[in-house]
Amino acid sequence: MSKRKHFAALALGGVGRIGMNMMVYECDGKYIVVDAGVSFGDETTPGVDVIIPDTRFLREHAKDIVGVFITHAHEDHIGGIGYMWDDFGGAPVFATRFSRLSMENKLRELGIKPAKGEVNTAKPGETIEVGPFKVEYVGVAHSIPEAFGLAITTHYGTVVHTGDYKFDEHAPFGQQTDEKRWKAIGKQGVLAVLGDSTGIFAMKPSGSEKAVFEHLDKLIGESKQRVFFAAFASHVGRALNVAEIAMKHGRKVCFLGRTVNKMLGYAKELGYTPAALKGYIVEAEEASKLPPHKVLVFASGTQGEPAASLTRLSQGQEVRGLRIDEGDTVILSSRMIPGNERAILNTINGLYVRGAEVVTELTDRETHVSGHASRPEIQHMYSLLKPTYVVPVHGEPGHLTQHARCAEEWGYKPLQLTPGHKLVLAPETPFTQPHAYAHGYNYIDGLNILDNDALPVKERRKLSYDGVVSAALAIRATNGEWLGELSLSTKGLLDERLQKDILDRAAKHAMKALDAVFPDALIDEPQRAREVIGQSLRKSFKQERGKSPTVLVQFIEV
Amino acid sequence: MSKRKHFAALALGGVGRIGMNMMVYECDGKYIVVDAGVSFGDETTPGVDVIIPDTRFLREHAKDIVGVFITHAHEDHIGGIGYMWDDFGGAPVFATRFSRLSMENKLRELGIKPAKGEVNTAKPGETIEVGPFKVEYVGVAHSIPEAFGLAITTHYGTVVHTGDYKFDEHAPFGQQTDEKRWKAIGKQGVLAVLGDSTGIFAMKPSGSEKAVFEHLDKLIGESKQRVFFAAFASHVGRALNVAEIAMKHGRKVCFLGRTVNKMLGYAKELGYTPAALKGYIVEAEEASKLPPHKVLVFASGTQGEPAASLTRLSQGQEVRGLRIDEGDTVILSSRMIPGNERAILNTINGLYVRGAEVVTELTDRETHVSGHASRPEIQHMYSLLKPTYVVPVHGEPGHLTQHARCAEEWGYKPLQLTPGHKLVLAPETPFTQPHAYAHGYNYIDGLNILDNDALPVKERRKLSYDGVVSAALAIRATNGEWLGELSLSTKGLLDERLQKDILDRAAKHAMKALDAVFPDALIDEPQRAREVIGQSLRKSFKQERGKSPTVLVQFIEV
Repeated sequence: MSKRKHFAALALGGVGRIGMNMMVYECDGKYIVVDAGVSFGDETTPGVDVIIPDTRFLREHAKDIVGVFITHAHEDHIGGIGYMWDDFGGAPVFATRFSRLSMENKLRELGIKPAKGEVNTAKPGETIEVGPFKVEYVGVAHSIPEAFGLAITTHYGTVVHTGDYKFDEHAPFGQQTDEKRWKAIGKQGVLAVLGDSTGIFAMKPSGSEKAVFEHLDKLIGESKQRVFFAAFASHVGRALNVAEIAMKHGRKVCFLGRTVNKMLGYAKELGYTPAALKGYIVEAEEASKLPPHKVLVFASGTQGEPAASLTRLSQGQEVRGLRIDEGDTVILSSRMIPGNERAILNTINGLYVRGAEVVTELTDRETHVSGHASRPEIQHMYSLLKPTYVVPVHGEPGHLTQHARCAEEWGYKPLQLTPGHKLVLAPETPFTQPHAYAHGYNYIDGLNILDNDALPVKERRKLSYDGVVSAALAIRATNGEWLGELSLSTKGLLDERLQKDILDRAAKHAMKALDAVFPDALIDEPQRAREVIGQSLRKSFKQERGKSPTVLVQFIEV
Repeated sequence: MSKRKHFAALALGGVGRIGMNMMVYECDGKYIVVDAGVSFGDETTPGVDVIIPDTRFLREHAKDIVGVFITHAHEDHIGGIGYMWDDFGGAPVFATRFSRLSMENKLRELGIKPAKGEVNTAKPGETIEVGPFKVEYVGVAHSIPEAFGLAITTHYGTVVHTGDYKFDEHAPFGQQTDEKRWKAIGKQGVLAVLGDSTGIFAMKPSGSEKAVFEHLDKLIGESKQRVFFAAFASHVGRALNVAEIAMKHGRKVCFLGRTVNKMLGYAKELGYTPAALKGYIVEAEEASKLPPHKVLVFASGTQGEPAASLTRLSQGQEVRGLRIDEGDTVILSSRMIPGNERAILNTINGLYVRGAEVVTELTDRETHVSGHASRPEIQHMYSLLKPTYVVPVHGEPGHLTQHARCAEEWGYKPLQLTPGHKLVLAPETPFTQPHAYAHGYNYIDGLNILDNDALPVKERRKLSYDGVVSAALAIRATNGEWLGELSLSTKGLLDERLQKDILDRAAKHAMKALDAVFPDALIDEPQRAREVIGQSLRKSFKQERGKSPTVLVQFIEV
C-alpha cells in the first residue's frame, strides 16, 4: 500500500455486519487500530465458535502500527484481541482500567504473555500521542462500565470515533456522555465522525437506567416469592442496581454465571461496588436455604444459551440447589438479539410451564433500555460535534444506509465506508480508494482459524442436510484389480440396523456401475472410479431415501 | 383405548408448539379429526423438510374415525393431509370449497387418488352429521379465504373449536366472524371452547384489513417508481386489495411466486377475484417492459426464504427481467415468524443496499395486521359463547398458560389439554386421563418419515459440528489379520489437500493403539477394534484440530 500522505479510515470489521468491530486509521503511512471484536456464528456456520475480522492487513503493516485502542469491553469490541495479538507487531495497546482487566483475562486464558509496555492504561481526558496521532478518550454512556469514544487528531484535523454510546443523565457510576467535552471538540472543528448506527431505527430516546431501576424496584417490591433476574452479564451497572433494589427489599442476592461474576470482580477491584452490598451477596448454596421472599437470583441466559443457568432453570432443572417454583417472578431485563429469538422463546415457554410470573419485553417494555443512541440521540450527538462528514459504522447495511440518509437530512455530508475500500478523508475532498486492502473474516473453528466459508464449514453444512456414505473397496496394489465387494457405512441417512437392505442394494448398483466402466475388474483410473461410485451411490440414496449424501470413497491397496 | 361412554378431546399436535395443528374429538368410542397441519424444522433439524404429528393413534383407531374436518387452508392446518391420508381409514374428509381445492392439489402432488366419497365439500351453516357428532362450520375472519370455526355437538353437549380467528368488520370477501351465529350457539349452551391462543400476548385489537388497505393506498400512491410488495402468499384478500390499489393508481400487477398464483387460481375459480382486475394482471416479462411507475410487483419471501423472489431481488439478482432499482419502494406487509428474524433481516439489509425505500414492521406498523384474535378479541369471543370451560389450544406453552390465566380472570374455568393425555369433558366433571395415547411428531426427511429426533437427524447434527472421518483397513477374511495401513478420508474437519500430514499422524497413532490391544496384528474382536480406532482418531483430531469427529470404521475382508 502506498505511503502517500493522507488521513484515511479502513474498516476491517463492524461495518455492514453487526459485531467484530475493528477500524484502522491511517495517517501518512502510519496506523492505529480501534477495537478488536468478535461476532458469533449462526446455523450457516455449524460448529464455528466465534468469527473475527481477517487481519492480513495488520500483519502486512505490523511495523507501521503505532497503537491499538479499545473503546470498551463488550465482546464485539474486545473479544478477538487474543486471536490477533501477534498481528499488532508489538504496538502499545491502550484500554481504560475496566477494559484492561477484561483484556488481560482474555490473554491469560489463551496463554498469551504480553511483552513489557504492550498493555497500557488509558486515562479519560488525557491525550495519548502515538506517531502522528493524538488520541483522547472521551466518556460516553453505554451498557458496560467505562465506555469511551475517541477524538483522533492528526495534522489533517480531528476525526471522532464515537464507539457505542447513548445519552443518559442517570447513567450508572456517573458515566454520562461527556457533552461538555464533545461540544468543545466540536468547537475546535471535527472533520468527520464515524458513528454508531445500531439505534438508527429507534425513533424514541433510548431511555434512562434510572427508569429501569424504578420499574424493577416496583416489580421486585411486589413479588412475594423468589425473584429470578436475567440481564446481560457485562451490564454491571444494572446488576448492581438490582442488587441494591434487592437489599432495599430485604433480599440477599445470588449471582449465577461465570461471566457476571468475572465482571463483578473487575467492578469490585475498581471500587464500583457499593460497600453496603457486602453482606447481601451470597452463594447459591446459601440462597437456596433462605426463604423465597428473601432471595433474588441473578441468572445468566438472556439469549437462551443452552448451558446458561436461566435456560436450565426454565427446563425445570435445579441449578446449585435453586429451582423455579410456581409463583416465582422471573424478569428478563434484556432485548432479543436477532437470530436468538427462537432460543429465547423456548426459555420463556419453559418459565410459563414452571408457573412463574414472567416479565419480558414481550409484555413489558420498561424492564430494559438499550445501550445505543436512538435516532434523536444520534442527531443530538452530531449537533454537539458539528462534523463536516458523517461516516456510518457499527451496523448492518440497513442501519448504515438509513444513518446516511438521516445525516444528509440533518445537514451533514454522509460518506460511505466499506470493508476492503479505503476512505481517504484528507487532505483533498474525501474519496474512496477501492479494493485497497484484504478484508473478510475468519472462523475460529476448534483449533482451526479458517477463511470465511472455508471448505470444512461448507462440507459440514452439506453433511447436515444429506448425511454421509463412506465406501471402501480393496484393490490389488500391483494392478488395481478389485478384491471382493464394496463396503458401505453411513451416518445421517438411515438406521443401518433396520435398513441394511438399502445399503446392500446401493453397493450392488455401485459395483455394477463400476463393472460397466472397468470391464475387467481393473481400476486403472482411481479418480474416475471414485466418480463412478459416488454418482451411483448418490443416485441410489436419492431414489431410496430422497437424499443425496456426501460420499467418501477409499480404495484399500493390498 | 377403552370404548367408555364419554366426550373427550385429544391433541395430536398444535398444543404446546406452534404449527401441525391436529385435534381429535371422541364420543362414545367414535372419533372425528380436526385439521392435519405441518410445522417446519429449524437449525436443530437440518435437512428435515416438514414436521407432522405422530398419527399412530389414528392408525390404531382408523375403523372408528367417522369424519375429518379442515377449518382452513393454512399449511399449519392442512399441510400434512397427504402424508396421513391413509391413516383416516377412508373416513369422509370435509373442507369448504377453497380449502378443498388446496387439499386436492396437495393430494395430486403426492400422487394420491382419493376414493369416491372421501373428499366432501362442507357448506357454512349446514350441519354435518357423522356418527354421534353434529358438526357446523361457522364463519370466522382470518388471513385466508374461507376460515371457519366448528361447533361440535354430541348428546353430551356442544364444544366449540374456534380454529384461527379474529374480528374484523371489514374482512375481505365479507368473511367476518359470524357473531350472530356464535352468539346463538352460546345461547344454546357451550360446554367448552377450544380456543386459538396465538394472539393472547397482543393487548390491542388486531386491527382491520381496511386500515391496511388505506395505508397501502397512501404508500403506493406516493411512490414514483416501481413498487415491490410482499405478503403471505395465502392472504388472497390482501393480495387482491393491493391489486385493486395498484389498478387505482394506474399500475399493472405482476404476481411472482408459485404459491400466490396457485392461491389466486383457487380464488378465481371460486369467483373471489373482481372482474375489473382482469386487464391489470400481467406476467413478469410484460411488467419488466412497463415504465416503473406503472407497475406493482407482488413478490414472495416475507420470511427470507432462500429461493423466494424477494430474497433474490434483495441480493441484486434479476427475477424474470425484474430488478430493484434505487428509489423503488419495497413494502413487507407481514410479521416475522419467530426463528426467521435473521433471514428476514438479511433480506431487508439487501433492500437498503439496493437503495430502495423500505417499509417494514420495523419502521411502520401499519402495513400489516395479524390474522389472530388479540387478548381483548378472545375475551369478546368468549362473551359470545359463554362457555363453561376454556381449553387453550394452538399456541406455545407460554401462550397456553397466559390464555388459561386470562380465562380464569374472565370468569371461565380453564382446562389444560396436553398431547398424549385425554381430556374427558363429559359426562362427569372434566378430568384428564394421563398417557392415554401415543403422541409426538414425525420428520419428513427426504423420502423418510422419521420419529422426532430420530437417529439420522441426531447424527447429522453431530456431523455439522465436528465433521466426519472414515477409516478403512483391509483384513484377511480367514483370520482377521490386518494387511497394510489404515486409510483415512475426512469431511468438515480440514483441507486434505493442505493438511495431509495431520491425517498421516492420526492414522499412525490409530495403528499404534490397535497394535497395543491386538499384539499379533489379528483382529479377533472387530467391535473392540472399531472402538480402539474410533477413540484414537477422535483423540488425535481433538488435539490437532480441537474437533471430535464422527468416525466410520470399516474392515475390508480380502
